[in-house]
Amino acid sequence: MSHSLATHPDRLLPADPGTRSIARSLLERVQDLPIISPHGHVDAAVIEQNTPFPDPAALLVSPDHYVTRLIHASGVPLDQLQPGNAAPREIWRQFCAAWPLFDGTASGYWLRTQFESVFGWQGELSAEAADASFDAISTKLAEPGFRPRELFKDFNIEVLATTDDPLDNLESHRALAEDPSFHGRVLPTFRPDAYINIAHPSWTTNVERLISEASDGGTGYRGYISALENRRRYFVDHGAVSADHGVKTPATLKLDQADAEALFQKARSGEATAQDRNVFEAHMMYQMARMSVEDGLVMTIHPGSFRNHHQPTFEAFGADTGHDIPVATNYTEAIRPLLQDFGTAKDFHLVLFTLDETVFSRELAPLAGFYPSVYIGAPWWFLDAPDAMLRFRSAVTETAGFSRSSGFIDDTRAFCSIPARHDASRRIEASFLARLVAEHRISDDRAHELIVDVVDSSPRRVFKL
Amino acid sequence: MSHSLATHPDRLLPADPGTRSIARSLLERVQDLPIISPHGHVDAAVIEQNTPFPDPAALLVSPDHYVTRLIHASGVPLDQLQPGNAAPREIWRQFCAAWPLFDGTASGYWLRTQFESVFGWQGELSAEAADASFDAISTKLAEPGFRPRELFKDFNIEVLATTDDPLDNLESHRALAEDPSFHGRVLPTFRPDAYINIAHPSWTTNVERLISEASDGGTGYRGYISALENRRRYFVDHGAVSADHGVKTPATLKLDQADAEALFQKARSGEATAQDRNVFEAHMMYQMARMSVEDGLVMTIHPGSFRNHHQPTFEAFGADTGHDIPVATNYTEAIRPLLQDFGTAKDFHLVLFTLDETVFSRELAPLAGFYPSVYIGAPWWFLDAPDAMLRFRSAVTETAGFSRSSGFIDDTRAFCSIPARHDASRRIEASFLARLVAEHRISDDRAHELIVDVVDSSPRRVFKL
Amino acid sequence: MSHSLATHPDRLLPADPGTRSIARSLLERVQDLPIISPHGHVDAAVIEQNTPFPDPAALLVSPDHYVTRLIHASGVPLDQLQPGNAAPREIWRQFCAAWPLFDGTASGYWLRTQFESVFGWQGELSAEAADASFDAISTKLAEPGFRPRELFKDFNIEVLATTDDPLDNLESHRALAEDPSFHGRVLPTFRPDAYINIAHPSWTTNVERLISEASDGGTGYRGYISALENRRRYFVDHGAVSADHGVKTPATLKLDQADAEALFQKARSGEATAQDRNVFEAHMMYQMARMSVEDGLVMTIHPGSFRNHHQPTFEAFGADTGHDIPVATNYTEAIRPLLQDFGTAKDFHLVLFTLDETVFSRELAPLAGFYPSVYIGAPWWFLDAPDAMLRFRSAVTETAGFSRSSGFIDDTRAFCSIPARHDASRRIEASFLARLVAEHRISDDRAHELIVDVVDSSPRRVFKL
Repeated sequence: MSHSLATHPDRLLPADPGTRSIARSLLERVQDLPIISPHGHVDAAVIEQNTPFPDPAALLVSPDHYVTRLIHASGVPLDQLQPGNAAPREIWRQFCAAWPLFDGTASGYWLRTQFESVFGWQGELSAEAADASFDAISTKLAEPGFRPRELFKDFNIEVLATTDDPLDNLESHRALAEDPSFHGRVLPTFRPDAYINIAHPSWTTNVERLISEASDGGTGYRGYISALENRRRYFVDHGAVSADHGVKTPATLKLDQADAEALFQKARSGEATAQDRNVFEAHMMYQMARMSVEDGLVMTIHPGSFRNHHQPTFEAFGADTGHDIPVATNYTEAIRPLLQDFGTAKDFHLVLFTLDETVFSRELAPLAGFYPSVYIGAPWWFLDAPDAMLRFRSAVTETAGFSRSSGFIDDTRAFCSIPARHDASRRIEASFLARLVAEHRISDDRAHELIVDVVDSSPRRVFKL
Repeated sequence: MSHSLATHPDRLLPADPGTRSIARSLLERVQDLPIISPHGHVDAAVIEQNTPFPDPAALLVSPDHYVTRLIHASGVPLDQLQPGNAAPREIWRQFCAAWPLFDGTASGYWLRTQFESVFGWQGELSAEAADASFDAISTKLAEPGFRPRELFKDFNIEVLATTDDPLDNLESHRALAEDPSFHGRVLPTFRPDAYINIAHPSWTTNVERLISEASDGGTGYRGYISALENRRRYFVDHGAVSADHGVKTPATLKLDQADAEALFQKARSGEATAQDRNVFEAHMMYQMARMSVEDGLVMTIHPGSFRNHHQPTFEAFGADTGHDIPVATNYTEAIRPLLQDFGTAKDFHLVLFTLDETVFSRELAPLAGFYPSVYIGAPWWFLDAPDAMLRFRSAVTETAGFSRSSGFIDDTRAFCSIPARHDASRRIEASFLARLVAEHRISDDRAHELIVDVVDSSPRRVFKL
Repeated sequence: MSHSLATHPDRLLPADPGTRSIARSLLERVQDLPIISPHGHVDAAVIEQNTPFPDPAALLVSPDHYVTRLIHASGVPLDQLQPGNAAPREIWRQFCAAWPLFDGTASGYWLRTQFESVFGWQGELSAEAADASFDAISTKLAEPGFRPRELFKDFNIEVLATTDDPLDNLESHRALAEDPSFHGRVLPTFRPDAYINIAHPSWTTNVERLISEASDGGTGYRGYISALENRRRYFVDHGAVSADHGVKTPATLKLDQADAEALFQKARSGEATAQDRNVFEAHMMYQMARMSVEDGLVMTIHPGSFRNHHQPTFEAFGADTGHDIPVATNYTEAIRPLLQDFGTAKDFHLVLFTLDETVFSRELAPLAGFYPSVYIGAPWWFLDAPDAMLRFRSAVTETAGFSRSSGFIDDTRAFCSIPARHDASRRIEASFLARLVAEHRISDDRAHELIVDVVDSSPRRVFKL
């Protein structure tokens, strides 16, 4: 009975003994199912080339802005967490000193589970144990069994989607697909943000390259559109199932050809305003939906993050350094122009993610409960945590049931955290369903079917896997 | 101990055994109290004429947009659920095939309870059981005991308010009131939306008719206002206790007579803008409050729904077909002009409903906790579900206590679902109060008084019954 | 086992027996820790002069707009609750008649605890018991042990911050600090709202006085700024640790010197617009942050209340009479200009409070989880209640952990309610942590450290005590 937190069989399950016992049984039903990860940020090349993982700090701390942000909040400048500026062992010491700050956080759960279940580190982390844990994990990382392909298998991953630039040649994806010794599916995802957001610093260059490499000779706006269509087809041919869009808001808009063309030219000549950026992005979301209807790529939208909130940090350390902050987001009116034309289109799948949990009950569940195309994106970023996932299920289920949500998305670049994240999600799904059983709202038998549905069938169905 | 979900005595009650036992006792206190339904959409004529209910599909599926929307989301076109386009048995089969989608939804709870408690169907629904259940329910519907008046009595309904056009002659209400063999109260509700929203397609015609039939010879804006006053009086004379307003936002505004008149004329001549629509609606909410202060009708406001979100569906199938989607709604500033003048008016009752649950703790509880006129509308549409109702009580009670909310509103046109809806509400009220008792926040004795208050006394007091 | 609600050892603790037993043990760890109250509205002079408390109504009812608002909502005009207009015993009778309305409210909890634990009134309150309870409490109030200084000691208060006008001479604070017979710390708080909000009725007079008394001869905008700086220094010299700002929104803005000066002159000449008010307030928040970086005062911001919502009540009874109503509030973009320049400034502490709980998970936890300066203000006004405090912890912890929130703030002018408020907060912290332990999310040992951290160390650390 003396379990560590990381391996306690009842971790994350509800405290009420009757409900917990139902949850245990539900969890058992799905605990060994393969991992389906339809959206994330692992680098396909790392898997293809089976690149050994670097030291503990470079693997677990520096690249993970979930982790560095909280250490930064405690007063450690970001440069002390950067491989170029500090020795790996120093970075690890900073992390270990900050470890108590992670109590109660989602990141804390994932990290603790990794330390023990992946790296076999049994004790607590602490400033005192910094060097010992660094050494222990380093030793593990040097073992042949800790290469990406071995872990991919150990983790029981069946499908792993990456996130890719539209002009990526997808060589690693092709090589993995053709490699008879590799049994997972590593799928690319079409992510054209930097070709759509005209305020992106390299938009003009990107578009230049896009047209020149992929438009089949077309020029201007038409060339741009057909180049995007061509690259999407290339992605489809390389196994992609979805196109992902990180946008400022969920706004959509249908411009006529002439207006779109004029706006595109204005942007290329560097004269576009902030308002133009919004209009063009909204129009392109409409276009992306049209293309999804045509080529079958599932369309996922991730709006509502104010990117690079702290300009000095952005200037010093670049994007994705922990200061993207959510804003209130409204979908009902914003997404309407798109849904007018494609909301009931055959086989169109539109997954709406949010960082603003107020929309779960107010907008996303009502939308997904009517439109056959709309699926509610599982809790994402800041919300992919036990309590937040329970609030999500409570907010959407009474209107939309269990069939209208996307299934869990780990959205991570931290490869070794994938099992912990899916484990947490499965435990929460079991906890939610167990409560409904305990309250006689669904039968135990149905709950055992539903847990398989939400964990396994939903992501396959929604992402056309 | 082998209960079905629909009849389990502990359904919807909290899982913790101690809390559940308190909840059971509280529920017992109110389980046999009559149903008070101060807002809904049942047709009075159906009760007056004791019209037999049609087939199961036409009774339980086609007219209920809670039900058709989720079937539609699963990929069934709406025309396959419409009496004119598909045979009742075919519609019922579609419904049965989709039945598993309703697990965990509020509609699922109501339907399941009806099947078993009203129609005596014991088994699960399923595609396989479609014909058998269709036949079984059809047989029941043909029995004399399944006529509306018999069910009205069986359901233990004391008061049922309908929703009516201002020019309705209220013949059925009068006939029921005068019928010595009928013992319930069926009350009309004054609902003037189509006479106030100048964007309504038939607004001009409606206003024409209103003035010509009810203005006592007055013309123009003055005639319009006095016709509305006259019709409200007619409703009061026929037993109405409230006037209901389905508005875009809770905006209110006091225009002076000249501005109101000018806007009214502009609208009649077809030149009003979208902004004019908002201004006129806001002004008319102010006028409706003034009239409520004068004639005593409780004023209820149901804002925040984006109506007919999917234009193609609206064009093909009309309004109320499942694609009204909530939007973020703010009350504090919007309702202020009305409350400046009438917030403390003697005997004025203003019930504020919302589809945006963020306002429960932020705006509605603080407003109702100060203004004697303001009552917090019980969770409505998309929120009239077990978890949402618990969130509601948790959000409002700590600021406003139990005396400032309206009591449950079933808001339904599905007559046979009324007992199931009130049953769910009573179970949730018992669950919430039981937790407060278990946490030693109120005494068991007070909880037994409070459950009667929220279930029975609140709607009587708030709706002046 | 026959405990009253007010003294039940398990009050507010979770119902599940296993979780409750963990919570009990956590509560025990902090139950006897001294009270740290870093923000509130008690009058320092009352403590310094050890002024006897007045009658029960003047102590517990009339000045507490939490209490009068709910009585007002029940239909009692405010003048019947005002010392000048009604005899204390009459006011007390009104309160007792309304007492059942407080069931389930936060105020009800605080009052009940005071009656029994402070004033020794054992029975229930009721209309019948009005005179008896009035007499019993009056008798207690006349006892020498019920003077403020004696209660200060009995209540185990270590630090009590008051809220003070920038031109206050802080005589009482000085006298208390120098009094060897007084062992607590009573600290002033710099609250310059009436000198910053140019729409404040006495802004011009206030600024005139400020410049003339504190600018060291400076004039105009520069004199204004340096007078504020001087008065802050005076506050620091008298023990102040924070400056508090009750603003309309969290907007911040950096104007250049010339624009600020022009706006200031425009305001002084009475020509400023509503928009100017917003711009100037935003600019001054930026200035206040700059000063905090320089002089070390913790900056606290309390935005999002629509003040004096009911104009007729404001005209008759003045401000703070129960009709300040929250509005939706957004921080991410509003606070950004300030954070650009001071977000990572050394030793700068910025505590962001909110009345809009939707921002806890969406904005405040993400901001505080990155910026070392930002702390999440504990639930305040309308949200300082058991369920709301649990929602707060659930909303922020998974992103920001336990180290990034301010610790409890009682924010009260009701001196005798201070122990009850802190007691409620400690019980809720214990309840939340106990659930995490029961769900194996943190260890029991860490929870025992964390409860001390949130109850005691957090306010000391965040408020630099």
